Amino acid sequence: MLLDNTAKGVFPIAPTPFHPDGRIDEASVDRMTDFYLECGSTGMTVLGVMGEAPKLEGGEALDLAKRFVKRASSIPVVVGVSAPGFAAMRALARASMDAGAAGVMIAPPNTLRTDDQIVTYYRQAVEAIGEDIPFVLQDFPLNFTVVMTPGVLRRIITENASCVMVKHEDWPGLEKISALRNFEKDGMRHVSILCGNGGAFLDFEVERGADGAMTGYAFPDMLVDLVKLSSSGQRDAAHDLFDAHLPLLRYEQQPVVGLAIRKYIMARRGIIASDAQRKPGAAMSATAKAEVEYLLSRVARHDARAKLAAA
Amino acid sequence: MLLDNTAKGVFPIAPTPFHPDGRIDEASVDRMTDFYLECGSTGMTVLGVMGEAPKLEGGEALDLAKRFVKRASSIPVVVGVSAPGFAAMRALARASMDAGAAGVMIAPPNTLRTDDQIVTYYRQAVEAIGEDIPFVLQDFPLNFTVVMTPGVLRRIITENASCVMVKHEDWPGLEKISALRNFEKDGMRHVSILCGNGGAFLDFEVERGADGAMTGYAFPDMLVDLVKLSSSGQRDAAHDLFDAHLPLLRYEQQPVVGLAIRKYIMARRGIIASDAQRKPGAAMSATAKAEVEYLLSRVARHDARAKLAAA
Amino acid sequence: MLLDNTAKGVFPIAPTPFHPDGRIDEASVDRMTDFYLECGSTGMTVLGVMGEAPKLEGGEALDLAKRFVKRASSIPVVVGVSAPGFAAMRALARASMDAGAAGVMIAPPNTLRTDDQIVTYYRQAVEAIGEDIPFVLQDFPLNFTVVMTPGVLRRIITENASCVMVKHEDWPGLEKISALRNFEKDGMRHVSILCGNGGAFLDFEVERGADGAMTGYAFPDMLVDLVKLSSSGQRDAAHDLFDAHLPLLRYEQQPVVGLAIRKYIMARRGIIASDAQRKPGAAMSATAKAEVEYLLSRVARHDARAKLAAA
Amino acid sequence: MLLDNTAKGVFPIAPTPFHPDGRIDEASVDRMTDFYLECGSTGMTVLGVMGEAPKLEGGEALDLAKRFVKRASSIPVVVGVSAPGFAAMRALARASMDAGAAGVMIAPPNTLRTDDQIVTYYRQAVEAIGEDIPFVLQDFPLNFTVVMTPGVLRRIITENASCVMVKHEDWPGLEKISALRNFEKDGMRHVSILCGNGGAFLDFEVERGADGAMTGYAFPDMLVDLVKLSSSGQRDAAHDLFDAHLPLLRYEQQPVVGLAIRKYIMARRGIIASDAQRKPGAAMSATAKAEVEYLLSRVARHDARAKLAAA
Repeated sequence: MLLDNTAKGVFPIAPTPFHPDGRIDEASVDRMTDFYLECGSTGMTVLGVMGEAPKLEGGEALDLAKRFVKRASSIPVVVGVSAPGFAAMRALARASMDAGAAGVMIAPPNTLRTDDQIVTYYRQAVEAIGEDIPFVLQDFPLNFTVVMTPGVLRRIITENASCVMVKHEDWPGLEKISALRNFEKDGMRHVSILCGNGGAFLDFEVERGADGAMTGYAFPDMLVDLVKLSSSGQRDAAHDLFDAHLPLLRYEQQPVVGLAIRKYIMARRGIIASDAQRKPGAAMSATAKAEVEYLLSRVARHDARAKLAAA
Repeated sequence: MLLDNTAKGVFPIAPTPFHPDGRIDEASVDRMTDFYLECGSTGMTVLGVMGEAPKLEGGEALDLAKRFVKRASSIPVVVGVSAPGFAAMRALARASMDAGAAGVMIAPPNTLRTDDQIVTYYRQAVEAIGEDIPFVLQDFPLNFTVVMTPGVLRRIITENASCVMVKHEDWPGLEKISALRNFEKDGMRHVSILCGNGGAFLDFEVERGADGAMTGYAFPDMLVDLVKLSSSGQRDAAHDLFDAHLPLLRYEQQPVVGLAIRKYIMARRGIIASDAQRKPGAAMSATAKAEVEYLLSRVARHDARAKLAAA
Repeated sequence: MLLDNTAKGVFPIAPTPFHPDGRIDEASVDRMTDFYLECGSTGMTVLGVMGEAPKLEGGEALDLAKRFVKRASSIPVVVGVSAPGFAAMRALARASMDAGAAGVMIAPPNTLRTDDQIVTYYRQAVEAIGEDIPFVLQDFPLNFTVVMTPGVLRRIITENASCVMVKHEDWPGLEKISALRNFEKDGMRHVSILCGNGGAFLDFEVERGADGAMTGYAFPDMLVDLVKLSSSGQRDAAHDLFDAHLPLLRYEQQPVVGLAIRKYIMARRGIIASDAQRKPGAAMSATAKAEVEYLLSRVARHDARAKLAAA
Repeated sequence: MLLDNTAKGVFPIAPTPFHPDGRIDEASVDRMTDFYLECGSTGMTVLGVMGEAPKLEGGEALDLAKRFVKRASSIPVVVGVSAPGFAAMRALARASMDAGAAGVMIAPPNTLRTDDQIVTYYRQAVEAIGEDIPFVLQDFPLNFTVVMTPGVLRRIITENASCVMVKHEDWPGLEKISALRNFEKDGMRHVSILCGNGGAFLDFEVERGADGAMTGYAFPDMLVDLVKLSSSGQRDAAHDLFDAHLPLLRYEQQPVVGLAIRKYIMARRGIIASDAQRKPGAAMSATAKAEVEYLLSRVARHDARAKLAAA
């Protein structure tokens, strides 16, 4: 199963579940994967920054990827392979595909500046990993400080047939989606667009032509419903659902502490056993936990999935 | 009337109203100021980046500041005086105070990196403008790329008696507010904290100890109500109001295009005559305008102030 | 006298001489200008960052520009007009030209990233100041963090007829000069290229096709000789002279402390009365001064102009 | 043999020799190592950025480190272990030490900003690799955009007993060396300081208290002589030698193209067989090669080691 440009729906960004002592919690890996499948995810993305990939030893990372792939057998798994050098990127990409991954995701190094530097980087990355591996282009200026114009995205897509998807998380980004879809009307090859940024603009992004979400919000089941409602033309219902979650979603989207919040909620929902991060990681204060509980209780008024037994 | 550390409530960041031909629209300046007063603002901030200050000629800027001060006679007006050199900063600060301003706001230049560089910069700025001018320390890492730890803020506050307020817009920022308030328990001089970032976390910021908002959301009347509800202990009502606005507020908070959206809504509300920006400025697409109209209609279900006659 | 694309030779970047108490030292302004003329400078650049322009009040800056222009009557004077807003840029540019300047210099704001952002910025700057004012495009990535490819320079030059010169200080930069000259062979309009970076690569830059230097090394007379020797085909002599100065030139080229060193040497040479900087400024340690004296004594073995009476 | 704070002299930064087809050239690895030993190097540093480490597969990198260690048996070998995650850093550090390395070098990730972030990063790195591995703190703001004040260096040195050396390449940096040595007078633990930056200020750095060089200039034999001359009090002779090389040294110190120049000269000297870089790499133009040849011929007038048979 290879990723291609028809991908739609929701690919959760999977965190890596740990035991409190820092070991990978394999039972939670399986339970979380099952949860993603049950709630209608159409794919999964693993070993990204939010998956604490930089804290995993090489062999450990690959074993984890294999476990995800095996458990999620019916849906494609994308593996993050961004690395400071092409040798490491190639090694991880080839090994991931051998392990059954459907494709890889590549973010630009934060030292790129000019249009040509960015385009050249992706050309070299494809040369390194091979043209046979479908890849996702991650466009996340807020995090990587690399700014890609729509024209630069078009150049990368046009030059590299193996670029099948854009993980869109520019901010602002709505007009960029429209620009890419307009390029397609003018002849640019079609690519899938899945949106990140914690889902903060997903309500309008799908209306602009995005195919869904690739992000880690702790209620991927809500994201799945939102994409379905929107694509079936139930606009108000889609926004009603989204708006009920937005206060919590915004809270989780905070940089630095976002992962702690996400894991806290996922553990509260029983999707993973513990909210532990491998060291070093940012912890939540007691006040922050209370704020999340309050937000959960508010979401629960509109969405029963947020109604949780007391912590 | 000088700004001091007891400031509370809402200080709207005032945009500069222009005629479509680029001239300042003085009637709208007055109407907008009146609106701010009527809706319970406790201060105003003018000539910030969102006030298009860099597009104003020196004399023009000062005349505008005078007009704001005169019209808003009963509340303090803060003038943004950030500048690439201390000479220009001093000149604008002194002239602003002569024109009746209550204080000035100073952002750090985006070239500062180390703790000592930041602390030294504020020391030199105070030396330049004079210790008699109360100033607001703007802490906005997302925009300026200058990261100030709570400890750095404490050093600046402790060293400079004329620092009376922090414009807090770090992201994430809730723990920072708590840290500053804890410093006060340990003996640090009290400062006012007003929050920016478009108001995106104001619901919890006031609960953490912030004194209110200094931001430009096109419904400052909502911000005023939120601060009142929260400070009177009506937590759920505060969040209900905030959450009703959050989808629109988030939309307006987008960088680059945010000002266009803000002016569009303010013009739709009749607060200013035109959403024109002086060149160069980012425009809204027709789709974006339709999205804002949709969001307004949704807010209007909970807050009648968003119910507007068709555009 | 307007700057045009035939400019050649050496345009010293003039520091601003101050009295120890911070007032502008007008006698030194005149003496320094006379010195530049006597040593064969073909132009001058004033009110740049190294001219401490950000520390000058608006009126003061303009008076200073006028004094330079009047005293340097026979050669063109370029005025730095980089500013955070187009209104201030326009005001300073128009006033400078009224005062007799030959042209202006514009650096990009350090927030620009994409090719299109850079090209757009210069288009808007020209719109702001007017197409009748010749301008110098400053390409200094190390300082401004804005990286312009040769292709971006070509776009700016092609779009804006009033761009008559590039102040080249990219690092590395030799191939960029060759690329620009090759563009001219392919039909791009000719522009003058003067080199900055303290002159650190001037020996080869003129061989690559640059027209000379625009920089502030405290021996502009050496730079003048170097350009002459090189353009008359005396390659070895040019390098002999350059190499004799390189240890000192490299020392002066250090960021942050460079201006203090430059002023120290110019004061030692009697070109200005004092090495004072207006506050805030970086000072030299006693050890640094001794190092400069040692370097001067070493240069003096090859170039008598560096033989100075004891300090 | 473990690295400690008494290290002095010259640790060349070793490039990785490749065959033109991209394979590691093991014969050149050995010959280059022998050359370093013969010319009096007191240590070596391998697998840094200039060693093209990011282009090496994991196993390949470790095999290379082992080969260097074995061949250079009598002197300590430092291995660069900077990595985006602590897991990879730990794995490479432990494996390198197992392979016989004397210590490791750690550069800060370019996302660090505040003093506390930097200090915390090194604390966590030491936790990850273990306190038993001596490490070199790389202070190179120009490349990494992380600015460490002398006070921050002192905090890291004081907190981490395993920090035995600073690779100093701040620019300007002379006063920083003096500040660190003054801290030692005030009680800070002594660390070795070896200087990088291509050696561009080594003439004065050793006079300020640095213990030598850790850099890759293609004439490490000159650096060895310079350090000896300077430490034996022959100041003029030290500067005479340094100044003869400075025009070439400056040329090689250029970012981006510097490695190509270094390898070109090393191949011309017969130290390595080929100047090939593994892809992707920046190539030298024919003009640049001619410039280097010209500079070599000029150095050769003072230093016979630069007299090379025609290319």
